[in-house]
Amino acid sequence: MDKYYIGIDLGGTFIKGGVITKNGEMISKGEVPTETAMGADRVVQNIATLVETLIKDSGAKREQIAGIGMGVPGMIDGDAGVVVFAGNFGWEHLPIAKKLEELTCIKVKITNDANAAALGEAVFGASKKYNDSVFITLGTGVGGGIIINKKIFAGFKGAGAEIGHMIIKAGGESCTCGLNGCFESYSSATALIRDTKRAMQANQNSKMWEVGLENVTGKTPFDYADCDQSAKAVVENYLDMLAIGLINVANIFRPQAIILGGGVSKQAGIEKPLQERLNKGIFAGDKGPQVAVMIASLKNDAGTYGAAALFMD
Amino acid sequence: MDKYYIGIDLGGTFIKGGVITKNGEMISKGEVPTETAMGADRVVQNIATLVETLIKDSGAKREQIAGIGMGVPGMIDGDAGVVVFAGNFGWEHLPIAKKLEELTCIKVKITNDANAAALGEAVFGASKKYNDSVFITLGTGVGGGIIINKKIFAGFKGAGAEIGHMIIKAGGESCTCGLNGCFESYSSATALIRDTKRAMQANQNSKMWEVGLENVTGKTPFDYADCDQSAKAVVENYLDMLAIGLINVANIFRPQAIILGGGVSKQAGIEKPLQERLNKGIFAGDKGPQVAVMIASLKNDAGTYGAAALFMD
Repeated sequence: MDKYYIGIDLGGTFIKGGVITKNGEMISKGEVPTETAMGADRVVQNIATLVETLIKDSGAKREQIAGIGMGVPGMIDGDAGVVVFAGNFGWEHLPIAKKLEELTCIKVKITNDANAAALGEAVFGASKKYNDSVFITLGTGVGGGIIINKKIFAGFKGAGAEIGHMIIKAGGESCTCGLNGCFESYSSATALIRDTKRAMQANQNSKMWEVGLENVTGKTPFDYADCDQSAKAVVENYLDMLAIGLINVANIFRPQAIILGGGVSKQAGIEKPLQERLNKGIFAGDKGPQVAVMIASLKNDAGTYGAAALFMD
Repeated sequence: MDKYYIGIDLGGTFIKGGVITKNGEMISKGEVPTETAMGADRVVQNIATLVETLIKDSGAKREQIAGIGMGVPGMIDGDAGVVVFAGNFGWEHLPIAKKLEELTCIKVKITNDANAAALGEAVFGASKKYNDSVFITLGTGVGGGIIINKKIFAGFKGAGAEIGHMIIKAGGESCTCGLNGCFESYSSATALIRDTKRAMQANQNSKMWEVGLENVTGKTPFDYADCDQSAKAVVENYLDMLAIGLINVANIFRPQAIILGGGVSKQAGIEKPLQERLNKGIFAGDKGPQVAVMIASLKNDAGTYGAAALFMD
């Protein structure tokens, strides 16, 4: 009897999920509002409701479900099934796996959302052919997921892999975490928008003013880079700082590939100048094994796929 | 029949080694000159000669030897038994394990020297009670060894764990690797000596002039920190930058402990101010699991112990 795997991607606004086969076919898919403000029990109830819908839509028998894997934004102790700390939800030490198991009578495993996306890409996406890869998401913040030998490495009690909070410029830009100079404070979409606005304010003749300060997104400097020096400078500096993070990740983990996800990774061709910078800066140059820079391929479903993969093997 | 394990610590000047029991008793110990300048074959011959002496001195029977483990400074592909790149020796792609096996008729495994020291401390030393630890050596350079679940993690083809070449200050001090702002360029004994000399030159009244510029060591600023403002500032800045490296290691790996070895780690009490800085800077503060800062306990034998441990399990 074929086994099916449920993946849940818990976000602050929506809970997304899918039922996936061993081969990576998503045979049902859905989402419901998270209703974060209504408290943890309501959120867990909403997940359970989504799970029932997903099973029904998939046509799978309940006994065919191997388990529910879930990615949760925050510090997650996967072995204990506990959300240690999730700022967006206001949760601390929440035994969410046990709560969801009680409601669904199905086994539950959880991990951090970036870890889930990393595993999704490693099992079914861009890094499928590699055993060792690091996934970096360039969104509002910078998240990281580390895959060693096709398994998530998350550190003691799941508290590691906080690549966004690796300091790359001591005394640099302030970060949401309270420190200065974190990778996130240079490489997130938030940082890119901050730098773009600064560049506009420093140059009233920048063509980027067509967009207007309040409409700046991470896309803006890339859109104008070919025809505006200020935009070009923002992009070049962004790539330089992002490359420093990639060099660090390469020197520390020496994965076979670094996969970039999140909003900024959608800028066409961004991997090329990053690959060049990485090749130039990587320790021991071309004497050691090289690290490929790639763009995530599963897009918004990476987290769902990876969560489901928690029960595969 | 009891098994015995040979550990070899290959240095640029001396080859050290020992025969070790499963319980960590070193039953014979010795060293011979490396004779690096005489080429790779001579070095391997010297290792083989040392091995024979070690076995003889231990009283062990040849068939009781489980294998020869060896730590080598450089980029080491342990699975292949190949020194990918070792700047100090001028070696590239040297199949040293095979060469040594041919001379000794004993199985050989190799790893990077910092990895070996990390494993030695994890199996028999300071981090014995932890599954996950990171070893950082503060010497002429900064080396790193990562232990996950009591095993060395070295990255694809053993080219990772280059913690010394993690950039912590973009655009900062120049590093031997060609980049700027590496952890090593702030936290090595070399960096500490550089900063001490600079502080003396900036303050002709510094008490450190008693020592004389040419006699400065990593110990100098620590010796004068209690009575000289320039010395104190050097020490404080050194600890701040070293702590940034520790915060990064903690946020990326979240090990249970970070073990400090190498010359600078011998400064009495250095772990206390570092622990304070780490606790203050670690991601999610006291909400996540804490990371202990400790001093290596096996001193100069850590590499030998760890190399021997490559054959245990």
